[in-house]
Amino acid sequence: MMFVCSRCGAHEPSATRAPRCRCGGLWDLEHEHPPFDPAAVDRREWSMFRYRAFMELDDDATWQSVTMGEGMTPIIDFDDDLALKMDYLMPTGSFKDRGAAALIAHCVSIGVDRVVQDSSGNAGHAVAAYCARAGIGCEIFVPQGTSPKKIDLIRASGAAVNVVPGSRDHCADVCRAKVAAEGVYYANHVYNPVFYEGTKTFAYEIWEQLGRIPANILVPVGNGTLFLGLVKGLEELLDAGLIEAMPQIIAVQAAGCDPLLRAAEAGASQPAAVTPEPTLAEGIAIGAPMRGAQILACARRYGVRFVHAPEDEILPARAALDARGVHCEHTTAANLAAYWQYCRQWGPTPDCLTTMCGAGLKSDH
Amino acid sequence: MMFVCSRCGAHEPSATRAPRCRCGGLWDLEHEHPPFDPAAVDRREWSMFRYRAFMELDDDATWQSVTMGEGMTPIIDFDDDLALKMDYLMPTGSFKDRGAAALIAHCVSIGVDRVVQDSSGNAGHAVAAYCARAGIGCEIFVPQGTSPKKIDLIRASGAAVNVVPGSRDHCADVCRAKVAAEGVYYANHVYNPVFYEGTKTFAYEIWEQLGRIPANILVPVGNGTLFLGLVKGLEELLDAGLIEAMPQIIAVQAAGCDPLLRAAEAGASQPAAVTPEPTLAEGIAIGAPMRGAQILACARRYGVRFVHAPEDEILPARAALDARGVHCEHTTAANLAAYWQYCRQWGPTPDCLTTMCGAGLKSDH
Repeated sequence: MMFVCSRCGAHEPSATRAPRCRCGGLWDLEHEHPPFDPAAVDRREWSMFRYRAFMELDDDATWQSVTMGEGMTPIIDFDDDLALKMDYLMPTGSFKDRGAAALIAHCVSIGVDRVVQDSSGNAGHAVAAYCARAGIGCEIFVPQGTSPKKIDLIRASGAAVNVVPGSRDHCADVCRAKVAAEGVYYANHVYNPVFYEGTKTFAYEIWEQLGRIPANILVPVGNGTLFLGLVKGLEELLDAGLIEAMPQIIAVQAAGCDPLLRAAEAGASQPAAVTPEPTLAEGIAIGAPMRGAQILACARRYGVRFVHAPEDEILPARAALDARGVHCEHTTAANLAAYWQYCRQWGPTPDCLTTMCGAGLKSDH
Repeated sequence: MMFVCSRCGAHEPSATRAPRCRCGGLWDLEHEHPPFDPAAVDRREWSMFRYRAFMELDDDATWQSVTMGEGMTPIIDFDDDLALKMDYLMPTGSFKDRGAAALIAHCVSIGVDRVVQDSSGNAGHAVAAYCARAGIGCEIFVPQGTSPKKIDLIRASGAAVNVVPGSRDHCADVCRAKVAAEGVYYANHVYNPVFYEGTKTFAYEIWEQLGRIPANILVPVGNGTLFLGLVKGLEELLDAGLIEAMPQIIAVQAAGCDPLLRAAEAGASQPAAVTPEPTLAEGIAIGAPMRGAQILACARRYGVRFVHAPEDEILPARAALDARGVHCEHTTAANLAAYWQYCRQWGPTPDCLTTMCGAGLKSDH
């Protein structure tokens, strides 16, 4: 299994501890697995590892000691037009468990015994919990102001929590400095390409559940960990001849933090410079997404449409979901707000699926 | 579909609004469904309604408008001896969703448009969320002292919350008085026999997942909503010839509130009178379980062993689960504390499964 640099194309065995290529580029994975094949799904396994024949994993066994049954989330109706994939029905209450399970299985396979990660929320919680499961030491760097509840959840998993004064970006810098100085493994959901081997199962599952892919799939995009996984999974379904065309992908950004939407509208290949404004959709409020160029390239290739989640519709959207029995985080409610906005801009949009990616049970309010 | 009185044997159509028989007995269900048959499982449905061919439901369609994908929870290892069924990976974060989904589907089928329920926790939250989903009005009576977080969750679903001063028992009395005075439907998880049509799928799932039933199954018992469902499901597997004998069922009670354990040890057919002491395992601290005689009769029939969850081992058990990546409620951690106690009393107990029935994300602490 090989890592390949997304910038210079250099190759390195996936056992590398280097968080990125010498040239500064982020790692991608060189795909060696066979194409998706419904007959090779292990239907006795009730987790996303039922698709392991199509996932780049270092070995066939490690996942068994790491899995907590992540994946296989149900799809339910919001209304006649919109379906919800209930992707927060996960061990730590967010879709990040897909990526964390794959990433930590990778860490076990290559003998990593200690990791660090910077996060202010769900990714840190997911990595901490899977490290606990795998018996790997874990330290999570969180910015000042992180919700006490999320800190408690991370600490409950036995991880050390390092609260860093200053901005989210500064927190990441402090964490990366530790990676550089001490050579400790950087289990980061944006940097590490194995994370996307987990998130791509989101697409496989939709296909297996529905026997098809809906005409429209609306996903939130901050750092793009779900978006890139979804695109990868759909590409594999396309390659396997199981779908005839890509669906219309609709990418959601917060109205107050939309570097990718702006770049896409300007036809730019790099994220626009933005000054993030406060938003309820904090989980996607990423001012400078590290894989922005990659996301924008995918968006061009597949005609992705970007849409804002209007800030003043996030709370009404959350209430509308609660009125259907579904209690999600604000960032997740933003998906419905964005769907409403999309329908206003592009007309009625039946046969659409979106994701409920973070549980309301994780919210402070 | 018929209700039959557990005391006098009287029959009444299941469309009845009467919370119990005229004689005061609680309703059971008369089973008319075919025996469990693996070939008749609807494997395309990723919820417990994949087993609907073996569930008493009033019609074939209503469940579709009510389901939120409850059930199909994974089984993972705690260690070589103990497996955990992750039954809090549910829409509202507890196993009560199995029963609530079945019960509210029943309410829709028979035209109920408004329900009441008394609860201090997970059952009230589950009923409120499924009522929201089904468009049924809902009022939940909770005793003074109920966690503000649980009240918020119930209110988020649009249910009215009525906080009743005094004890949990008084709260139930106030709720039942409203049922009697206004004839409003009593969607109670202990009274209503349809609830158990949901909880019995717990047993079906274990069989489908493992292809067998473990030698030992350890479950918490307060009101017995899971216990009675489990026994029913196992009896059906036995009737279908899919298992040769019942497993050793191990029933957990809180050390400070153990009316069933005491009755079982005394060979009594009714729960013992106890004065409940405060316990972290509040979810099973039921001083006078309404279906106590039924639980004790099952226990005698199948050689169920009762065991205490030692109070001072609940927090260490919760920490041990967290150290395996699993963050549960205190009541759920009591299952592991009880497993340790059982092993001390009865010797090493391999091939045991227990349930993680309530999510740690629901806890205030």
